[in-house]
Amino acid sequence: MPENKVDERRRVVIEALSPQIDCGRFSIKRVVGETVVVEASVFADGHDHVACQLLYWRENDKAMQSSPMIPLGNDRWRGEFRVVNVGRYEYTVEGWIDRFTTWRSDLIKRIDAGQDIHVDLLIGAQIVQDVASQATGEDAVLFRQCVRQLRENKDEESSKNAALDAELLQAVQRYPERHLATRYEQRLAVVVDREKARFSTWYEIFPRSCSTEPGLHGTLRDCEAKLPYIAAMGFDVVYLPPIHPIGHTFRKGKNNSVSAQPDEVGSPWAIGSEEGGHTSVHRQLGTLEDFKKFISSAKSYGLEVALDIAFQCTPDHPYVKKHPEWFRTRPDGTIQYAENPPKKYQDIFPIDFESSEWHALWMELKEVVLFWMKQGVRIFRVDNPHTKPFSFWEWFITEIKNEDPEVLFLAEAFTRPHVMYRLAKVGFSQSYTYFTWRNTKEELTDYFNELTQTEVREYFRPNLWPNTPDILPEFLQVGGRPAFMIRFILAATLGASCGIYGPAYELCENAPYQPGSEEYLNSEKYEIKHRDLNAPWSLKDFIARINRIRKQNPALQSDRNLRFHGTDNPSLLCYSKTTDDLSNSIVVIVNLDSFRAQSGWIDLDLNSLGIDPAHSFEVHDLLGEGRYLWNGARNYVELLPESLPAHILHVRRSVHAETDFDYFL
Amino acid sequence: MPENKVDERRRVVIEALSPQIDCGRFSIKRVVGETVVVEASVFADGHDHVACQLLYWRENDKAMQSSPMIPLGNDRWRGEFRVVNVGRYEYTVEGWIDRFTTWRSDLIKRIDAGQDIHVDLLIGAQIVQDVASQATGEDAVLFRQCVRQLRENKDEESSKNAALDAELLQAVQRYPERHLATRYEQRLAVVVDREKARFSTWYEIFPRSCSTEPGLHGTLRDCEAKLPYIAAMGFDVVYLPPIHPIGHTFRKGKNNSVSAQPDEVGSPWAIGSEEGGHTSVHRQLGTLEDFKKFISSAKSYGLEVALDIAFQCTPDHPYVKKHPEWFRTRPDGTIQYAENPPKKYQDIFPIDFESSEWHALWMELKEVVLFWMKQGVRIFRVDNPHTKPFSFWEWFITEIKNEDPEVLFLAEAFTRPHVMYRLAKVGFSQSYTYFTWRNTKEELTDYFNELTQTEVREYFRPNLWPNTPDILPEFLQVGGRPAFMIRFILAATLGASCGIYGPAYELCENAPYQPGSEEYLNSEKYEIKHRDLNAPWSLKDFIARINRIRKQNPALQSDRNLRFHGTDNPSLLCYSKTTDDLSNSIVVIVNLDSFRAQSGWIDLDLNSLGIDPAHSFEVHDLLGEGRYLWNGARNYVELLPESLPAHILHVRRSVHAETDFDYFL
Repeated sequence: MPENKVDERRRVVIEALSPQIDCGRFSIKRVVGETVVVEASVFADGHDHVACQLLYWRENDKAMQSSPMIPLGNDRWRGEFRVVNVGRYEYTVEGWIDRFTTWRSDLIKRIDAGQDIHVDLLIGAQIVQDVASQATGEDAVLFRQCVRQLRENKDEESSKNAALDAELLQAVQRYPERHLATRYEQRLAVVVDREKARFSTWYEIFPRSCSTEPGLHGTLRDCEAKLPYIAAMGFDVVYLPPIHPIGHTFRKGKNNSVSAQPDEVGSPWAIGSEEGGHTSVHRQLGTLEDFKKFISSAKSYGLEVALDIAFQCTPDHPYVKKHPEWFRTRPDGTIQYAENPPKKYQDIFPIDFESSEWHALWMELKEVVLFWMKQGVRIFRVDNPHTKPFSFWEWFITEIKNEDPEVLFLAEAFTRPHVMYRLAKVGFSQSYTYFTWRNTKEELTDYFNELTQTEVREYFRPNLWPNTPDILPEFLQVGGRPAFMIRFILAATLGASCGIYGPAYELCENAPYQPGSEEYLNSEKYEIKHRDLNAPWSLKDFIARINRIRKQNPALQSDRNLRFHGTDNPSLLCYSKTTDDLSNSIVVIVNLDSFRAQSGWIDLDLNSLGIDPAHSFEVHDLLGEGRYLWNGARNYVELLPESLPAHILHVRRSVHAETDFDYFL
Repeated sequence: MPENKVDERRRVVIEALSPQIDCGRFSIKRVVGETVVVEASVFADGHDHVACQLLYWRENDKAMQSSPMIPLGNDRWRGEFRVVNVGRYEYTVEGWIDRFTTWRSDLIKRIDAGQDIHVDLLIGAQIVQDVASQATGEDAVLFRQCVRQLRENKDEESSKNAALDAELLQAVQRYPERHLATRYEQRLAVVVDREKARFSTWYEIFPRSCSTEPGLHGTLRDCEAKLPYIAAMGFDVVYLPPIHPIGHTFRKGKNNSVSAQPDEVGSPWAIGSEEGGHTSVHRQLGTLEDFKKFISSAKSYGLEVALDIAFQCTPDHPYVKKHPEWFRTRPDGTIQYAENPPKKYQDIFPIDFESSEWHALWMELKEVVLFWMKQGVRIFRVDNPHTKPFSFWEWFITEIKNEDPEVLFLAEAFTRPHVMYRLAKVGFSQSYTYFTWRNTKEELTDYFNELTQTEVREYFRPNLWPNTPDILPEFLQVGGRPAFMIRFILAATLGASCGIYGPAYELCENAPYQPGSEEYLNSEKYEIKHRDLNAPWSLKDFIARINRIRKQNPALQSDRNLRFHGTDNPSLLCYSKTTDDLSNSIVVIVNLDSFRAQSGWIDLDLNSLGIDPAHSFEVHDLLGEGRYLWNGARNYVELLPESLPAHILHVRRSVHAETDFDYFL
């Protein structure tokens, strides 16, 4: 005997609902104003017509909303809904046997075959009667009238007309008859972020290097004075390495040397001293008030402040005394320092997330972020999240977003693919990527197709960094100023989100610690820098121009719309981004060779650009200012690394021709 | 505060466990003796080593069994287990942080770097001590001894040796330390059938056409007399259309005419008369005793009897009077007959699975099958399952298999792909396929790659029929005797299970009802046939030969091992099947053109055949008797439709050469 809780007579089945991450274990991600396109296979036994609809709910909103689904053929259906608020939405699909349209299409066949239909009209009357029970107003009147006509069947011709009336069909479809309807087993979730989660341009700067006096320790106020400079380059997020007190015990010196001189400043990631820990401001940088002023000043320049979250402690951190149970103790009674054997990092005590006191520990870490949120921070760049448990992050990000769904987290994980993706799944809003080491046409094409054209795009939002304080890639070490131009163009046009570690980047600093190393020589992580921001070789104007192009062209503010196009030269990479409504379309062609001019033919997929192959189209190079009249898919380009390493072409679809004139008609 | 039921400190995560159908909603299928190869992505945060194992359970067996998993790289792991009993198994994966191997590999790095390791030895002692608490016997002694040595550390050299001892490593790995282990959320299921579910050769025959006297209604005893003939052709399943009483009301006549003459026999699928319904034997065929004798006689010839299950009734069926509530009533009080508007099938009342009395109805239908099981039937061919709800079949097949897991069901659904696959998912053991209409090289390659090289193979077992009483495909209508040879070779070598509707097939009956129709002229569905089984053009010896090849070559008894190879002629299809252990390998090359000789070059994937490209290999044509010495991937073939439309080549890998002689060494 069937004993399931559901009525076994439900005949419609729903399969392969997408998007769906790991069987619904994780949410997909969207930003406000975006659309969720949902597809499912919906079908039943037999010949009856099925109908289905997309159901969705806004968080804490009991009211269910619905959206129609249209058949794509082969039992596949599609519907969509728009997410208008930050927070969570849920969606699922419901399907049912559509008795009315089944009856109606059968009736047409019977009439065409000249069959007696008087019993069929009575069947139809019953179906309409059932629908009428849900209706009011005009619809109810229409239904009652139709039922009467079909029952009485005074005159077959007018009965037929009543039965097949298009208005009746439309009216009936307003009352989905969900008798024995099937709902997909799960509600799937969408986390909706504010727009910055998708489109953001980051600038990382060390406040202590911001003094105008060489040798002096810069302050948050000095850093505040640099905000106009940063804003002028078109950035919208200013990200500061940790601003907390720096430990003394085993402090690292210049170039990561194991013993610092007494006057050396140490690494900002070595958090905690007798002055305080993760909720304190390093005294040499200023006060909490200075930080709050920095935030509000940044805001006035259109910049949002991102703070660094590095959950680790120096031996001098207050936690070590107060909560030794949050660290791992070695058999000799000492606390376990960080290691990657045989390397030892004795200045750092990793937090033990497997501690038996994990409840209290996790709560405290949440308090740290709540503290900085209270000061006005809404973006956090998380240091090495891949060395803390995924379950911690899933809990932590959910908790924080429950407090304020506007908060965004960037995962600084450079590790194996499954780990990178899992961090995104458990909730990180944006993620660092392998872009930093993808240089060739094939590498870039494969990687960005994976990020933007597979399921990955539903939960992993790439943030592209050509450099970081930890990484000076080989391409930048050897390629000179053109290399810095090329990598910034790629980051800024392949990715809707990108960032640089400045001013090292715009000043083209390219000396590695030693050959084969990706560490900077005299890395800013361990010492104060003083730089001439007006150096003639600075890329600041170039960066400003690219960022202006990003702001002015919505196509560049999204990742899902990336398409690669063919080129006959492996040093030429060609790709486009086009808005869904085709109103904005950008084609980028980059010379990947920082040493030589490269030329060749590109082969555009005109269809993806919405271009009619029968008409010419104009492209306007927003970088080099040139305008070209192109015709067809194949076009010739030549790019010079020093002066014009790329075209960033704005596509103008309709070009005037003689056929546009009235007299041509 | 984390409030999940599981300890949030579990650091290992398990993703993308395969095989898995629709997020574990459905079982995968295997037959006894087969292997389930399981893969999963298993990883954790940080640098610790992870370990994992495959866990599995036999139904009703509380004892969990486990099987090791090996890393494939990129955080992917693989393990396998063998299913040895008919019934259900479940499997899942468990992963944990492997403290011992993490510690051991770190220790090696520390030693290599010449670091002081005395605290590390103490840490290791603690780990081994923890393992020791689970151990007894020799292992316990070994662990205690090791702990003592590491703790005392009298002599660093011997402490190191103790720590890195290979025996210790092996011993520790016998005690997976599953502290905070993570188990994949779900247990996934395998339905294990007997071997016939995978490898079977079917022969469909109408008992009423088995009389030796022209014009006489054949009986089950007459049919019994044909069993030696059927067995001699090498079949192992004899499938009978319904053997129940046939209705009178609106009985169909010859060629499906709407009114039968009084002496016409009607369609066996029009089930039910005053004589009885689904559990009765049609009087003209004989008695229940005759049927039981038929079963045991068949058994003595190595043949198993498959019965037809057609859940539908004529107006004369006892159910109609006794249970009118199981049918749909029209507004004029009559019972709704079957329709596919404008076509009417007034001889058939479909059962209403949406009836409010569905509980009683479903139980009765189960009783029907239990009745025939009591008579000894264990295979059922289900007529039109796609016109009854999926939920019914899922319940029904589960119930029957709970009674006896040896029972097999073949789904006779020729309908849309999602529906075909869903029926297999809900439990059908085998399924009819689109093979019947796949004729070209591209069609066959695409379809069989879908069936055998995608997830479909986990749940859908194809049974290939070149004809049925309902379907005489165009290829057979026009291609003459060679067409019948070609299609049987394809069915019998592409599919581990196949069947024919005979003797129409071996006698090459090819007249359609009318041009453009796929119905047989004077279809056996509506009349009794009398045939000369010894007609000189009969393919019985040819079929017997092919079936002998199937029996003698295990490679042909499986579907997962199908691989297509290139040919330079679109009329030549080349494919192979090879057993997992490479002990049996068959290469088939078929001329798809029934009219003309075709020749060309084939291009074998030698690797998939386990052939060393540096050596010659012999192929022996099991059909044409030829032997060929081939060398390398490209080989020439010529196939003649009338005499030799295919090669069925047995591959002999090692061919003797002078290098095999002793003196060559």
